[in-house]
Amino acid sequence: MPRSGEDARRRLQQAALELYRERGFDRTTTAEIAARAGVTERTFFRHFPDKREVLFDGESALREVMTEAVAEAPEGLAPLDILRRVFATAGQRIEQNRSFTEPRFEVIAATPALRERDLAKHASLVEAVAQALRQRGVDARSADLATRAGWAVFDRAARDWIDDPGQSMSVHLDRAFEDLRGLIA
Amino acid sequence: MPRSGEDARRRLQQAALELYRERGFDRTTTAEIAARAGVTERTFFRHFPDKREVLFDGESALREVMTEAVAEAPEGLAPLDILRRVFATAGQRIEQNRSFTEPRFEVIAATPALRERDLAKHASLVEAVAQALRQRGVDARSADLATRAGWAVFDRAARDWIDDPGQSMSVHLDRAFEDLRGLIA
Repeated sequence: MPRSGEDARRRLQQAALELYRERGFDRTTTAEIAARAGVTERTFFRHFPDKREVLFDGESALREVMTEAVAEAPEGLAPLDILRRVFATAGQRIEQNRSFTEPRFEVIAATPALRERDLAKHASLVEAVAQALRQRGVDARSADLATRAGWAVFDRAARDWIDDPGQSMSVHLDRAFEDLRGLIA
Repeated sequence: MPRSGEDARRRLQQAALELYRERGFDRTTTAEIAARAGVTERTFFRHFPDKREVLFDGESALREVMTEAVAEAPEGLAPLDILRRVFATAGQRIEQNRSFTEPRFEVIAATPALRERDLAKHASLVEAVAQALRQRGVDARSADLATRAGWAVFDRAARDWIDDPGQSMSVHLDRAFEDLRGLIA
């Protein structure tokens, strides 16, 4: 896509996020999003199938980052140590994009239709990461259990970071992994 | 609700499940479900708001069972030991109802619209259980992390039990908790 297409895409995301915060997701139309972004509604639909997906554009990139990080982790690591690295890599991306990440979190938390989509996206990411672990030879049961339990840690760390951005995602991840270890012991 | 109402409700659930398996969720109408159950479509809508909810009737009962089990667990137990008891209690209910539970699992796994609803119901159950833990004085962070990670174990055990019903849910739960411990160590 040419640079101007990428630029329109970003402006559409920003405009959607602003409008969802100002008046709520349900009361925002695609025409209004397009108008605020300075493009036509047709351009909106060239980039996104609906007004939910405009907030989930980063998921396919995140999936790629995570499954690559699984594949590239050194030999001999235990499944949860691989996941620790994967989440740290994903965490860096989330950190780099805080001005979008934080209000996006808030809007999703406040909108049932978006929460449902968010859960479905997460489930699909969990499955992709578990599959990448299996491709490294981790048995299916361990891959599944480690990824699901690990995701609880990742999710906790991400919300801790939203509340306390003075510490890096990496620090929050370490703390959440340590807390889970303490709970399990 | 009089006994005949309960009976119609059960027949509607059974009819829906059969039809979803035979021809798929998307190609089944509420009129067809009602016809197979021997009631009117109006009766269907007296019991269920839509054809998705007909498969999620047990969720509010499960929520009650789980939050009560949290409240009734002995003093002094660690959060994950409380959850172990909660999941065992919930597991018994699931075991008692295998003829419905097993095909329901299959239909949900095969139907994106039902998977999304299932994920939303689970997220809401997780939140209810975490809240019950907080009401026992467990700090909010531990309650959240323990419930989410514990749910990975519960979910794993439920799927193991579907594959291997010769062992009880309680045995599968012990094994899954042990496996998580091994992964974390």
